[in-house]
Amino acid sequence: VALKETVITSRQNPVVRKAAGLLDSSDKRRQEKMFLCEGARLCQDAALSGIKVEACFYTKSAKEKYSSYLEAVWKVAGAAYCVEEHVAKLLSSTKNSQGVFCLCNMPERKAGKKVSGVVLENLQDPGNLGTVLRTAEALGIEKVILLGSCCDPFSPKVLRASMGAVFRLSLEMEEDVEKLGNRLKGEGITLLAAVPDASAVPVTEIDFQKGLYSIWIGNEGNGLTRQAMDVCHKKVVIPMIGRAESFNASAAATILLWEMQRGCAK
Amino acid sequence: VALKETVITSRQNPVVRKAAGLLDSSDKRRQEKMFLCEGARLCQDAALSGIKVEACFYTKSAKEKYSSYLEAVWKVAGAAYCVEEHVAKLLSSTKNSQGVFCLCNMPERKAGKKVSGVVLENLQDPGNLGTVLRTAEALGIEKVILLGSCCDPFSPKVLRASMGAVFRLSLEMEEDVEKLGNRLKGEGITLLAAVPDASAVPVTEIDFQKGLYSIWIGNEGNGLTRQAMDVCHKKVVIPMIGRAESFNASAAATILLWEMQRGCAK
Repeated sequence: VALKETVITSRQNPVVRKAAGLLDSSDKRRQEKMFLCEGARLCQDAALSGIKVEACFYTKSAKEKYSSYLEAVWKVAGAAYCVEEHVAKLLSSTKNSQGVFCLCNMPERKAGKKVSGVVLENLQDPGNLGTVLRTAEALGIEKVILLGSCCDPFSPKVLRASMGAVFRLSLEMEEDVEKLGNRLKGEGITLLAAVPDASAVPVTEIDFQKGLYSIWIGNEGNGLTRQAMDVCHKKVVIPMIGRAESFNASAAATILLWEMQRGCAK
Repeated sequence: VALKETVITSRQNPVVRKAAGLLDSSDKRRQEKMFLCEGARLCQDAALSGIKVEACFYTKSAKEKYSSYLEAVWKVAGAAYCVEEHVAKLLSSTKNSQGVFCLCNMPERKAGKKVSGVVLENLQDPGNLGTVLRTAEALGIEKVILLGSCCDPFSPKVLRASMGAVFRLSLEMEEDVEKLGNRLKGEGITLLAAVPDASAVPVTEIDFQKGLYSIWIGNEGNGLTRQAMDVCHKKVVIPMIGRAESFNASAAATILLWEMQRGCAK
């Protein structure tokens, strides 16, 4: 460790309290523009993805067990704290904690590139949001916009389910449907509302290689809001095969994102 | 209720004990060829899917709240038991139980049709298996074979995640790789091993409309066994776009199954 390591034995330590405070409160995360990241692999991912790491925390046993992961973290972290087990518990949101944590700055919102992408409206389930973000990254979709009241992408559950995709995607947040619609339309992007409606255009008939597209995907239970559907140019549907109405939200999103990128396959 | 209803007040009741015994033991389920199903919607689904329901159980409050679901169940159930809350707890595997349960016979294994289908090898995660089964059904894939040591499709978690697809799919189980390979080859089916290997044939290049295919999908962490790969005719891969190596197991399976059926889209 090139960093000077400080030992923390007290649960009252102000740095620990600051980090722990970010765990359960998306309001605090938003105010501070910081979040807490847990797990050896995820902390390594954050460091390697260019996330600004203000401090890392680890237990003594984690330092031995996960030193290969911690190396990348130590290179970029502003401070290193070895914490006692009872202190580590304050920072953990998992059942079987590895005892490795990073206090991170949220990545800067990059200026939106004019590329095809996806808009997720009111996604409520952290596991689902994380999975969709992971799939978007896996498929090379660069632009993901969270519309309305999605769950916080920097919550512990989303970070885990996304396998660090949150660190690398260019994530934007927008609360206003009209504003987003107008902005994307101004960039010459065609907006496609994904609906479970057999009369809509089959997504397989869109030529995603020609022009720029934004697929809008709605909430797990209720789909897109009326307002979001109205702002889009076209409605698209996953063609009905079998009992397609019974896809779960994550499978439907996977197929839509896949169709968007399918033509790019080499 | 056309059925005569019996009230059960004791946790020692033999029917309750039999049903509860099936909850945690796949061995018992296999011996008895029975399983326990929980939840108003899932029990209704079982009844409507032609599952033989030996008995249904419900609490007094569930009987009022879920009578519209229970109607289908009452029509087919061999017996109806109104159980007290403390008895219902013995039958439940969920945090917030609806208090509705069915003791069911496993569906008869239908004679394997000569159709395209999917083979799942050693799938360990109940949520993942359930999701894949749900997606297979949604896509109209009729033939699903569980190879090796998959988790039990009649476990409470798989039933839930599959949203009842387990009741309607023609599920087969086979432990022996060679035996299954030879049988399918004998039916003139081309066996495709799904691998994360860029040198394999892109799955988008297979014309699933011509001939019969069986896609073999492996375990979440380790993929297909060497033996399973060797028995297949060809290796196929999801074409590499973005960071495709980082799909989760369920997203990868969704894309493979979708590609298999994509040509059937109307």
